[in-house]
Amino acid sequence: MRILVINPNTSDEMTRDIHDEATRYARAGTEVETVSPAWGPRSIEGHYDDILAAAATLEVVRERAAEFDGVVVACFGDPGLFAAREVSPVPVVGIAEASMLVACTVAHRFSVVTVLPRVQPWIEDTVRLYGLEARCASVRTTPLTVLDCERDPAAAEREIVKAGRLAIEEDGAEAICLGCAGMGPLDKAVERRLGVPVLDGVACAVKLIEGLVDYGLATSRVAAFKAPEAKEYLAR
Amino acid sequence: MRILVINPNTSDEMTRDIHDEATRYARAGTEVETVSPAWGPRSIEGHYDDILAAAATLEVVRERAAEFDGVVVACFGDPGLFAAREVSPVPVVGIAEASMLVACTVAHRFSVVTVLPRVQPWIEDTVRLYGLEARCASVRTTPLTVLDCERDPAAAEREIVKAGRLAIEEDGAEAICLGCAGMGPLDKAVERRLGVPVLDGVACAVKLIEGLVDYGLATSRVAAFKAPEAKEYLAR
Amino acid sequence: MRILVINPNTSDEMTRDIHDEATRYARAGTEVETVSPAWGPRSIEGHYDDILAAAATLEVVRERAAEFDGVVVACFGDPGLFAAREVSPVPVVGIAEASMLVACTVAHRFSVVTVLPRVQPWIEDTVRLYGLEARCASVRTTPLTVLDCERDPAAAEREIVKAGRLAIEEDGAEAICLGCAGMGPLDKAVERRLGVPVLDGVACAVKLIEGLVDYGLATSRVAAFKAPEAKEYLAR
Amino acid sequence: MRILVINPNTSDEMTRDIHDEATRYARAGTEVETVSPAWGPRSIEGHYDDILAAAATLEVVRERAAEFDGVVVACFGDPGLFAAREVSPVPVVGIAEASMLVACTVAHRFSVVTVLPRVQPWIEDTVRLYGLEARCASVRTTPLTVLDCERDPAAAEREIVKAGRLAIEEDGAEAICLGCAGMGPLDKAVERRLGVPVLDGVACAVKLIEGLVDYGLATSRVAAFKAPEAKEYLAR
Amino acid sequence: MRILVINPNTSDEMTRDIHDEATRYARAGTEVETVSPAWGPRSIEGHYDDILAAAATLEVVRERAAEFDGVVVACFGDPGLFAAREVSPVPVVGIAEASMLVACTVAHRFSVVTVLPRVQPWIEDTVRLYGLEARCASVRTTPLTVLDCERDPAAAEREIVKAGRLAIEEDGAEAICLGCAGMGPLDKAVERRLGVPVLDGVACAVKLIEGLVDYGLATSRVAAFKAPEAKEYLAR
Amino acid sequence: MRILVINPNTSDEMTRDIHDEATRYARAGTEVETVSPAWGPRSIEGHYDDILAAAATLEVVRERAAEFDGVVVACFGDPGLFAAREVSPVPVVGIAEASMLVACTVAHRFSVVTVLPRVQPWIEDTVRLYGLEARCASVRTTPLTVLDCERDPAAAEREIVKAGRLAIEEDGAEAICLGCAGMGPLDKAVERRLGVPVLDGVACAVKLIEGLVDYGLATSRVAAFKAPEAKEYLAR
Repeated sequence: MRILVINPNTSDEMTRDIHDEATRYARAGTEVETVSPAWGPRSIEGHYDDILAAAATLEVVRERAAEFDGVVVACFGDPGLFAAREVSPVPVVGIAEASMLVACTVAHRFSVVTVLPRVQPWIEDTVRLYGLEARCASVRTTPLTVLDCERDPAAAEREIVKAGRLAIEEDGAEAICLGCAGMGPLDKAVERRLGVPVLDGVACAVKLIEGLVDYGLATSRVAAFKAPEAKEYLAR
Repeated sequence: MRILVINPNTSDEMTRDIHDEATRYARAGTEVETVSPAWGPRSIEGHYDDILAAAATLEVVRERAAEFDGVVVACFGDPGLFAAREVSPVPVVGIAEASMLVACTVAHRFSVVTVLPRVQPWIEDTVRLYGLEARCASVRTTPLTVLDCERDPAAAEREIVKAGRLAIEEDGAEAICLGCAGMGPLDKAVERRLGVPVLDGVACAVKLIEGLVDYGLATSRVAAFKAPEAKEYLAR
Repeated sequence: MRILVINPNTSDEMTRDIHDEATRYARAGTEVETVSPAWGPRSIEGHYDDILAAAATLEVVRERAAEFDGVVVACFGDPGLFAAREVSPVPVVGIAEASMLVACTVAHRFSVVTVLPRVQPWIEDTVRLYGLEARCASVRTTPLTVLDCERDPAAAEREIVKAGRLAIEEDGAEAICLGCAGMGPLDKAVERRLGVPVLDGVACAVKLIEGLVDYGLATSRVAAFKAPEAKEYLAR
Repeated sequence: MRILVINPNTSDEMTRDIHDEATRYARAGTEVETVSPAWGPRSIEGHYDDILAAAATLEVVRERAAEFDGVVVACFGDPGLFAAREVSPVPVVGIAEASMLVACTVAHRFSVVTVLPRVQPWIEDTVRLYGLEARCASVRTTPLTVLDCERDPAAAEREIVKAGRLAIEEDGAEAICLGCAGMGPLDKAVERRLGVPVLDGVACAVKLIEGLVDYGLATSRVAAFKAPEAKEYLAR
Repeated sequence: MRILVINPNTSDEMTRDIHDEATRYARAGTEVETVSPAWGPRSIEGHYDDILAAAATLEVVRERAAEFDGVVVACFGDPGLFAAREVSPVPVVGIAEASMLVACTVAHRFSVVTVLPRVQPWIEDTVRLYGLEARCASVRTTPLTVLDCERDPAAAEREIVKAGRLAIEEDGAEAICLGCAGMGPLDKAVERRLGVPVLDGVACAVKLIEGLVDYGLATSRVAAFKAPEAKEYLAR
Repeated sequence: MRILVINPNTSDEMTRDIHDEATRYARAGTEVETVSPAWGPRSIEGHYDDILAAAATLEVVRERAAEFDGVVVACFGDPGLFAAREVSPVPVVGIAEASMLVACTVAHRFSVVTVLPRVQPWIEDTVRLYGLEARCASVRTTPLTVLDCERDPAAAEREIVKAGRLAIEEDGAEAICLGCAGMGPLDKAVERRLGVPVLDGVACAVKLIEGLVDYGLATSRVAAFKAPEAKEYLAR
């Protein structure tokens, strides 16, 4: 089985970390290729970055998806996920949806611990868009930027543990979804310190894709994710 | 007052119709300029088109918004609306939100009548994202593409009236939001035939922008719509 | 254009302030007349006051609405709003709905800052009745009565800023709706101190009415706001 | 125990029927007095009637409630219910809330079968205001006015059975709440024909008041139902 | 009238207390028999205990319900309530639903004050299952086990008052539902100290059953609570 | 990896079919053992059956779970799932939650097609309990009993296809969750006929368990699924 993992952030260090995380939990026999688009924001921390990264990610999906059995969009805003389903011949899973859906099997309610406060409304919208608000105890932010998670993992771990503890003690969280692909490498360290399941979406998405492929499930094509209508696209 | 209306669809005929609608209801003293991006899909009928059009629309917003008092995003999917708020120095209103918010002042519940069945889940997500599901009786589709509304307005009117009537009789709609900018010119004709308020989002958005400017309201900058963080964007 | 603003509170000072606010933001060419009923509570701070004021307000609507192009009900509980729509030949907008709907165009979520704690459940019910609970971060109360806002505006401003700050910092509010018509004159002063949009419903309602009239929209008459059935009303 | 039943409709025939229904199911030892206000609409079929009837009902509550152990507001819109709680020294129960709350103990979901189509949005708002939307399968209307139920009970029964059957077969209703006090006398006849529990709110409200009094429960006075603030009320 | 009260906890002391509470508020002429199953957990503090107690309670319902006019399931998790409705020929009311439904008639919103923190998600699920989340201000826990309420009522009262006060002051509760049958005897003492209605579900359930029987209402048999299909049950 | 699949129905034929389905989609290296309890209902078609089957299933979980890496509860009502999490040392997944969570990755909204009409409210409660109501287009029933699916698969397939088609055409379903373990063997045949993804919960649960084990996730123990408190259980 071959899985394409796309890091919508154009940060090579982050792409490497995402690749490590994906391969660490992929099973023997699953081959993972991790790429990032040729253009777009270094990191994604809001709606503007999200749209640009989504457009760039879709180019990758269109060019490469057919070579794989499944695609992972590896940024917690799931940029372009629904559009990717329209143009990919194989299943596409986003890491936000993956971590939240898997969290539902090990916890009554989860919290998301993520980067800067400015992304909180956006992540809350994502939770709502996926219809999971009853399962989400809270979205907790940290002072971390996306790239801080790469630059100083020890400091990032401290901030994530601090926010996660508040989520558990004050919001009723029973599991923590790491709300940024860059936080993935810290999953087990944070889990040991918090004492509840800690979920990185990259790992979860890889496992979900493996499951979809094994079971032979494809994206539904009857409405939301139908291929784009035939039409002219004015070139840039 | 100067309002920039952006038609995210790259269809000149539609841009002209949108401009006519916007100026018809703008008050004396409001100057409207209507443009469409230099690239992107001719029409927007799904998530893929939406992302491309959003990226193209954001370029227009960044280049032109500062010359105006307010911006209207004139496609019912409100492509890139939240991102546009991040990068525009002036208020931005989408036509989907505009028509739905204004409908709330004249009707207990509204329905959206829109184009192809494939967009129904997408529009329903938009309603949900805006938190208006309790006010929305239904999203009703037609066999119309976006460009059909331009090509054959008489046939479009028939389809819209048919779907609108079902929304009123079966779903409890008390007003109809036209779910495509291309349907705007038909608003009063459809209203006469249906006997309930029929709202074109372009007209509604222009009126909302005029109100925001008169009252001196600006987009909130504390979280969801904060300007993008300083960062590198890899050029295309 | 002529707009009738009804202050359901029988307090002349408040009526004057509401009139000033309405005219300050009405555009040139909009004529505003502001009245209060001949009987009823001096101020409205609960369900009992609300019903009495609603009944008195409806008498004004029946007597005067036909002389105008639109009507504003200028108390944050929107007393008698739905009933007024049944008996008014012209559009009617309440200041609670107006401020909340307009807030949706400049903020991801708003909070209401209002008077005494006892009105919190009532305002929360109003938010829920309008289907806007997903957009409302919180309803925050102050120790202020309605008339305190008139008597000591400086103290009122302090209390509103204090509650507004908590709404922003603890509840995620990105805009503040002033939850009492008497707070209207403080809108811009509070806005300067809080750094987020602050919305007075009187101003918002006037702008919405202007928009409805410009666009030629009337209240839907098919169900919720149908004129009352012909029947006998036993006189008092 | 003494219960005051107020029929907010000023129709003597209906008041007599409500009295019969209330006494039929009151237990031995419960004394029921049924009255209607001295003024107001003959029947209540919309928001305007509701406000007038509410104001008139509140006069009765203020004058008479202290002589009783509990008060029933016997119109399905529960006019003035929350206000009545503010001014009554004894518990007050509305027939809409009563029938819906009791229905929850015998059915998974109930439907309301009520009068003219125009009241549907209003009743749906009531269900929503009480937070019972997940338990309400549907609100079904009939061509009946309120007074039709008195004038031609046989025809009313036919219409109610017809709508109730649709609610059971198409909406998943497992019980029917009769959505008008005037339908009360038909409860057992309709129940025999539909084969599911049929609830008249008058009977349910009397039983709830008896229970509240036996258990010594009073209306909570800490917020929503606090007595009105001391203030001047301009007399009519 | 004869009511069977089943304490699903196999604790005789608790059964006696429940019996006292039930008889204290039953009216003259209502005969109460209180029993507990022959097997099962001493106390119920989670899902595992709940299933075991539910199975044991259903045996009692099948053996004894036909001798009575109504059945009360007297544990706040309402173990086996929906199943009991399938196999009981007479109405069955659970104490959680009873206290919450009755609370809706005296308060805008209620909180539940219950035992150990571990039951909070379970009680929240119950509130949600009953569709009452909009009426429930919060579920507050204490360090008390179920049996602590029996062993040291004075300490239990202190903890309940402490949690109840927080619910009123911080969550907006206007009434308190005691979230454990063992807390019932403390209802009036806690009510005196908190100043809001305090509801024990045993008392509420008895009053609801009396009302159902007086009004002649039976459990709906058309879907959710239909008698089990004829089938083989492999014996233990 | 070793997975224990428990069929809560005591039907050997069904247990064999479930085992076949589980092993068909388990990956090489996953060993599946499928068992059913020693006692309890032949089939589960309501709340009463559910409680009995849950109690019996929990005995199996307590006796056997420790020998495995994960447990699947293979009946669409997920009987005893939350309780099983309390007493199992390894992850436990129910087939209803599994099929619905996985459906969220391939479809905008799914419908459940299940057995007899009587289970509809129960399944709807399950959807609601899992917080997935926004993703569930409908629950559609058939005239099939659980055992009919085993007895006459061809007829079952016809009924499932019929209900599934209605779900797609009238309710907006984009995927179908098979609402009974006995329907599992028909998944691919139904999928071919309906043209949308069709999900059997057994296959989905096996894939989810494999993913949980690979990623090293365990059930959260901090609240909802904490091991039962130490206490006396009166033996049967």
